[in-house]
Amino acid sequence: MKLNDVSVQGLTIRTWRAWIDAALTGAMSSRPLFNVRPGRDDRFDAIFIGGGAAGRFGAAYLRAMGGRPLIVESFPFLGGSCPHVACVPHHLFSDCAAELMLARTFAGRLWFPPMDGVVVSIREVVELFRRGRTGPHAVMNYQTKEQLDVEFVLNAPAHIVNARTVEVAGRRFSGRALVLATGARARKLDIPGAGLRGVFDYASFVNDLDYEPGNTIVVVGGGKTAVEYASFFNATGRRVVMVTRGRLLAAIPDAETRAYVIDRLVEQGVEVHEGAELLELRDGGDGRVGSAVLRVGGERVVEATDFVFAAIGEIPNSETAVRALGVETNAAGAILVDECLQTSVPGVYAVGDLIGPPMEMFKARKSGTYAARAIMGEAVSFRPASHPDFLHTHYEVSWLGPGEEEARARYPRLVTLRLPPDTPDGLHVGLPAGDRVMLYALAKPHLSGFQKLLVDGASRRIVGAHHVGYGAKDAFQYLNKLVRDGITIDELGDLDELFLNPTYFIQLARLRSGAKELIGI
Amino acid sequence: MKLNDVSVQGLTIRTWRAWIDAALTGAMSSRPLFNVRPGRDDRFDAIFIGGGAAGRFGAAYLRAMGGRPLIVESFPFLGGSCPHVACVPHHLFSDCAAELMLARTFAGRLWFPPMDGVVVSIREVVELFRRGRTGPHAVMNYQTKEQLDVEFVLNAPAHIVNARTVEVAGRRFSGRALVLATGARARKLDIPGAGLRGVFDYASFVNDLDYEPGNTIVVVGGGKTAVEYASFFNATGRRVVMVTRGRLLAAIPDAETRAYVIDRLVEQGVEVHEGAELLELRDGGDGRVGSAVLRVGGERVVEATDFVFAAIGEIPNSETAVRALGVETNAAGAILVDECLQTSVPGVYAVGDLIGPPMEMFKARKSGTYAARAIMGEAVSFRPASHPDFLHTHYEVSWLGPGEEEARARYPRLVTLRLPPDTPDGLHVGLPAGDRVMLYALAKPHLSGFQKLLVDGASRRIVGAHHVGYGAKDAFQYLNKLVRDGITIDELGDLDELFLNPTYFIQLARLRSGAKELIGI
Repeated sequence: MKLNDVSVQGLTIRTWRAWIDAALTGAMSSRPLFNVRPGRDDRFDAIFIGGGAAGRFGAAYLRAMGGRPLIVESFPFLGGSCPHVACVPHHLFSDCAAELMLARTFAGRLWFPPMDGVVVSIREVVELFRRGRTGPHAVMNYQTKEQLDVEFVLNAPAHIVNARTVEVAGRRFSGRALVLATGARARKLDIPGAGLRGVFDYASFVNDLDYEPGNTIVVVGGGKTAVEYASFFNATGRRVVMVTRGRLLAAIPDAETRAYVIDRLVEQGVEVHEGAELLELRDGGDGRVGSAVLRVGGERVVEATDFVFAAIGEIPNSETAVRALGVETNAAGAILVDECLQTSVPGVYAVGDLIGPPMEMFKARKSGTYAARAIMGEAVSFRPASHPDFLHTHYEVSWLGPGEEEARARYPRLVTLRLPPDTPDGLHVGLPAGDRVMLYALAKPHLSGFQKLLVDGASRRIVGAHHVGYGAKDAFQYLNKLVRDGITIDELGDLDELFLNPTYFIQLARLRSGAKELIGI
Repeated sequence: MKLNDVSVQGLTIRTWRAWIDAALTGAMSSRPLFNVRPGRDDRFDAIFIGGGAAGRFGAAYLRAMGGRPLIVESFPFLGGSCPHVACVPHHLFSDCAAELMLARTFAGRLWFPPMDGVVVSIREVVELFRRGRTGPHAVMNYQTKEQLDVEFVLNAPAHIVNARTVEVAGRRFSGRALVLATGARARKLDIPGAGLRGVFDYASFVNDLDYEPGNTIVVVGGGKTAVEYASFFNATGRRVVMVTRGRLLAAIPDAETRAYVIDRLVEQGVEVHEGAELLELRDGGDGRVGSAVLRVGGERVVEATDFVFAAIGEIPNSETAVRALGVETNAAGAILVDECLQTSVPGVYAVGDLIGPPMEMFKARKSGTYAARAIMGEAVSFRPASHPDFLHTHYEVSWLGPGEEEARARYPRLVTLRLPPDTPDGLHVGLPAGDRVMLYALAKPHLSGFQKLLVDGASRRIVGAHHVGYGAKDAFQYLNKLVRDGITIDELGDLDELFLNPTYFIQLARLRSGAKELIGI
């Protein structure tokens, strides 16, 4: 077979980038790329269908354990939707939202230009992303081949022959196990007009946007993704109308934290309609949406708009595997797995977004590695423990553990340590202050963030933490481990803070930990 | 005595702010303020001389334990030099440096204005700080009085009568113990012309600047403070000439990390002269410095400048206590203390910067609380363990543990996990990517940061971590605890990352931890 086989060459990141660029622009789109060792039979320990976070980490882990994995990926790059249309662009847009809020708040002062009436090009940001994204793609391919020593086939769909065999570009591969890792996709709107141009989800927005959105944007949904993109659109200087059937940001467990987040969102000008609905999209006359019909507070409202963004959930890409193998799913289409990530079909595993929520990166990657361990004969049990979480508005919002209300029910002697202080003028004092909120803290203090630590006064253990600001999200990863391990307020207060720290938890803990009977602050 | 006694009133943050403003602008500068309970004798468990970080946290802790502390502070606010002239303005200037580097990098693109030739007013930033700083000051006074229930005297110097007694504004107080917490001050230049106007340290810069510095700034020193302020001055659009006798940023333990930091500093235009010296400052004709005479590479160089910033170290403010009590000091003027923070004079303790390095916030605050515990009868031993550390350039630079060189000597099977990848084109790939580096990662990848994790392949324990970027500094506080407790690469890889995380340590660990024989990445 005359196929593009790169298994014996070392490829630089630069070479990969050029190849991915060509493949994505269509020049080589029909040509699969094989990185499969010659001279060995095509038998693997596991074949991963899908080389996104779950498949790639699973394959890497299996390889590190000494096994032989194969990844089959239809994109010309590994890493999946995250670097192509999901987490990476989301972070770019959220960075822009944070920067633009700062620029608008200080417009005309210091070095910030006047921003009154300035509408920032959304298209330019999207195009900057499209140009840049092949860089990280190339690193993934390079790392997976040269550093992680994993074999793969790119730019070609996998056809599942049976529970042990896949066919890719006419070539058959078999493995002791099959790992399904085909991810999830955005749920589409199911209303009249949903098929019009100008209706986007996170993926089509990045891939397909070919015009500059007008002045009003309608965002459907009230979860993380809806708010993250709404904040960006708002920060560009557009009117943003959010429509959600339920409560906005119900994911934020602490009521006061949630209120701070929503208050700031509304202060930035986002129009939020809870308990509302998008009923219909109408053609503007050119096949693109021209207006949106909403139900808001029992009234029908028509908004003129040429850009609608839907973030109403995710659907696991399970259909192909169900058809080919009969693996069982739940009602939401998520493939059912046991604690070893094995599906209802012996020897067939499923990982990542495909098995349902939480559809988060850590779960995707870890489920991949746990499947690998199971396949390599380890007795594993993948039961995600209480994990930290985050979202972006114009801010980074991070949390772990329950909110104050739930914690108070669970721990009668709960105490809270918080900033700003819980006083009538507390919101207008320059604390918290820390990296990237200093201009706010000194000149617009109510914008400098909010944070709260929950402590069980009986056991003295930290039970929850909540933060709105910048620079704390990373910390929650490690703090969550300390909290899971039972860290007390006394131990927390004995840590060494790097002041001014975005989380003031260490020093607040220290101020109070001298007392036998804890009180809040 | 007709003194200003506020002990029986509740004071709001707003009231405190007005009073501090008045006191600082001189309107009430001679009037001490007493927050001392009436109807109790003036006998305390401990009198803290100095209400900065060390004294305030010590007093709060002692009070939480049930003791009765008194703070005597010559400023009209608690919190000391940190919120007034040190850490807080430093963080403001560092935020400005980060924002300005971004604005200059993307000038004329997206929403960023053209920045060519734009010189940002330093004075405006300083004045913004001066106006804003009384906010955090007010919170400290409020918190200390209303929430922490600590008594204090403000706006009045303490005269040490003996090891148990101080006199403040004509009133005597005595305690079972005296805690010296008077901090440190910037070392002054000792060269001809050092007394000219236009020569600043971090404190006088914030307090005294009354003109707009010209186009060239000379910074003397090569440590954290020198680089932090040099980066800010550079970011404003000025030429910055750094002169240091030794190596720049020798504090950064990892050579590759240090090189990345210095390369970026030089790329931003900072002129660095190592092994160089400031010899003399010359009068510009108006009593202000007009030029600086340097020794650079054996040559005498004259730089025209009207602004010189000296960051050549700190001197403990120990003289008064030495004179009054005869407490012993080391050659650098730091007061000698035992593991209970007790000085050579029984019953007299010393805490904070006054006892020498590390002159960091965590040490100041913790030494205060350990002294409080000792005074209240606890058997304590204050021996700072290996602590995390950080500095700012235009970036946040954070580290814990040794650098690669030292670690390699200590752990023969050391492996490193790093980003960007260690390849010829590695610096020019869009990783690491994460909060606040997304524009760099996608459009100027070599500016998106550097990170490295050190793992002992034998024990599999994490032994060091190094990060240049944003949003990781806070994490190092908690990660340091995990590392001290012996976390392994396997346990780290099992944490739940919040992707895109500024530190990629969790996922890099997971990619490699499947292997029995660890290898780097």
